Amino acid sequence: MKKTALIMAGGRGERFWPKSRKNLPKQFLSLTDDGKTMIQLTVERILPLVAMEDIYIATNRDYKRLVREQLPDLPEENILCEPVGRNTAPCIGLGAVHMAKRYGDAVMIVLPSDHLIKYNSIFLSAVSDACAVAEQGANLVTLGITPDAPETGYGYIKFDPGRTSGRALAVERFVEKPDLETAKEYLASEQYLWNSGMFIWKVSSILGNLEKYLPDTYAGLARIQQAIGTPAQEEVLEREFQGFQSVSIDYGVMEKAEDIYILSGSFGWDDVGSWLAIERHRTSNEFGNVLSGDIVAIDTTDCIIQGEGKLIATVGLEDLIVVDSPDATLICKKDRAGDIKKVLENLRMCNREEYL
Amino acid sequence: MKKTALIMAGGRGERFWPKSRKNLPKQFLSLTDDGKTMIQLTVERILPLVAMEDIYIATNRDYKRLVREQLPDLPEENILCEPVGRNTAPCIGLGAVHMAKRYGDAVMIVLPSDHLIKYNSIFLSAVSDACAVAEQGANLVTLGITPDAPETGYGYIKFDPGRTSGRALAVERFVEKPDLETAKEYLASEQYLWNSGMFIWKVSSILGNLEKYLPDTYAGLARIQQAIGTPAQEEVLEREFQGFQSVSIDYGVMEKAEDIYILSGSFGWDDVGSWLAIERHRTSNEFGNVLSGDIVAIDTTDCIIQGEGKLIATVGLEDLIVVDSPDATLICKKDRAGDIKKVLENLRMCNREEYL
Repeated sequence: MKKTALIMAGGRGERFWPKSRKNLPKQFLSLTDDGKTMIQLTVERILPLVAMEDIYIATNRDYKRLVREQLPDLPEENILCEPVGRNTAPCIGLGAVHMAKRYGDAVMIVLPSDHLIKYNSIFLSAVSDACAVAEQGANLVTLGITPDAPETGYGYIKFDPGRTSGRALAVERFVEKPDLETAKEYLASEQYLWNSGMFIWKVSSILGNLEKYLPDTYAGLARIQQAIGTPAQEEVLEREFQGFQSVSIDYGVMEKAEDIYILSGSFGWDDVGSWLAIERHRTSNEFGNVLSGDIVAIDTTDCIIQGEGKLIATVGLEDLIVVDSPDATLICKKDRAGDIKKVLENLRMCNREEYL
Repeated sequence: MKKTALIMAGGRGERFWPKSRKNLPKQFLSLTDDGKTMIQLTVERILPLVAMEDIYIATNRDYKRLVREQLPDLPEENILCEPVGRNTAPCIGLGAVHMAKRYGDAVMIVLPSDHLIKYNSIFLSAVSDACAVAEQGANLVTLGITPDAPETGYGYIKFDPGRTSGRALAVERFVEKPDLETAKEYLASEQYLWNSGMFIWKVSSILGNLEKYLPDTYAGLARIQQAIGTPAQEEVLEREFQGFQSVSIDYGVMEKAEDIYILSGSFGWDDVGSWLAIERHRTSNEFGNVLSGDIVAIDTTDCIIQGEGKLIATVGLEDLIVVDSPDATLICKKDRAGDIKKVLENLRMCNREEYL
């Protein structure tokens, strides 16, 4: 069966401020040594399995220009623009109806555009196995990450080691982000994987699940599908999306559906959740600094410094994140990276939209 | 006797980098809440004692434009431009010969242009007393600062409490910057004052001392004096300055001369030796931060942050100095302010003159 991919690129993350902005979110930034942006890496990674013409990008209208600039080889009609963000269920549904219209049925690989994966071949092998499981009739398939810490920032998936389908394990249940105690129990039990947000299923299968668990959304998606290629396409898309409830595929479908399988693999997954991730993906110098741009660092250790044009000189610093941008400079203690959002709250409160 | 002032403004300090540059040294910066530059404050401070037309500025040619901009009321002919910097003895000598030519004799108050004084009226009272002592025939008079710490960065002056002239004490000797142990002894002895670099003497008297202790310099100065107002003035100035040895007034004259008196006063003197001085002269907020410019400071305490146009956002910082400038940003741990010069060494080594 034809393999397709839907790459979700509508996110508006704040955690890479001041480089990431409303008009330039994380998936369009380059955070690795190779200079490629996150979305470019995501497309490149899946190309051995899915032809460029079968890759779809779901994004916000505002980012269409960025997608075209960063992915010039992608057919323009494969860029699906959501009129408004309604979380992942409508987004995935939009991809599914376009694929249903074009291919009838297909295996659909759903990928976030802002994660990094270290070992592409291991990843591709897991995706390939997942495709086989989906094609052989499993309802829904997902990729899970073996936890190495009691993370409270991720959802978890409990699997049943007794039920398998090839390399895939049956999913017992999806659980939301746990508190630390619960996360520690999950980690110790060795029966939980992190929810990676990557899914593999047949187009027909996900549409069936949407019909069952989110019937209103499904009805709207069906109207969108009917309008594809007609003069009413844009108008219908606009109207239906405005009416959709905002719901994640996890909450709307995965937590309710049955016959779900999960594949895990040690492919070096990283959701690149903050500036700290830079240290895992860029080369540090002998003093533990990750530097880019024009930096003079005197007695400076274990810092992340991202210049941009202007010279940055540091003396006697440790464990700091310094990020320059054309109109704003961030200086943040490493263990406070999670509080960069407080800067944005302050800016929002002061109506300083130009910095968001 | 007429009172005149010579304000020395030829320095090229590095300690306020990146705001201070070769083409904009510290004396032309504003480091206080009132927005006035150091040299403007120096002139303003002495005006109750010396008329503007009797104030001379000795500076480098490169800074003549800055002096005129910042002191528009000062007669242009009172700006004395040294062709090259030869330390304070030739600089003071140049002022003295101009004053000798114009006034015959006068009381000459010599002031650095890059110090701050908190209590102007106490200062003026000390200077006024010093003028009287000089006029009454003391060879040389200087202002001393009562030490409140064993500073190793200043020269010291030992006085003889047994010999006085009015409020002035006789100087026993000038001593160079001591090591910490010696500085502690000086402090404990209560017989030493810091050398402030401020002097009061008759023009005839300093010229007599220059003739005695630096006869070659004096001979050159005499030729400069003869040429003042003639077509050869610039040419003679250029030639003589090139030939002068570089020597400080302390080393060249004060350490050798006799009949020196010193006046001390609690006028809140500060040589503004580094960015840390900012905390003594600007208002801190409730978190101990001295902020200027466009700053969003989250959980930031005891920091000095000087913005310039661009937004600076900080999260979780303490005890840092952050200074932005159009082409360079400095981030320095407070207790490492003395090592800002290492940044400049690095820039010099890399031939990055544009940043110096």
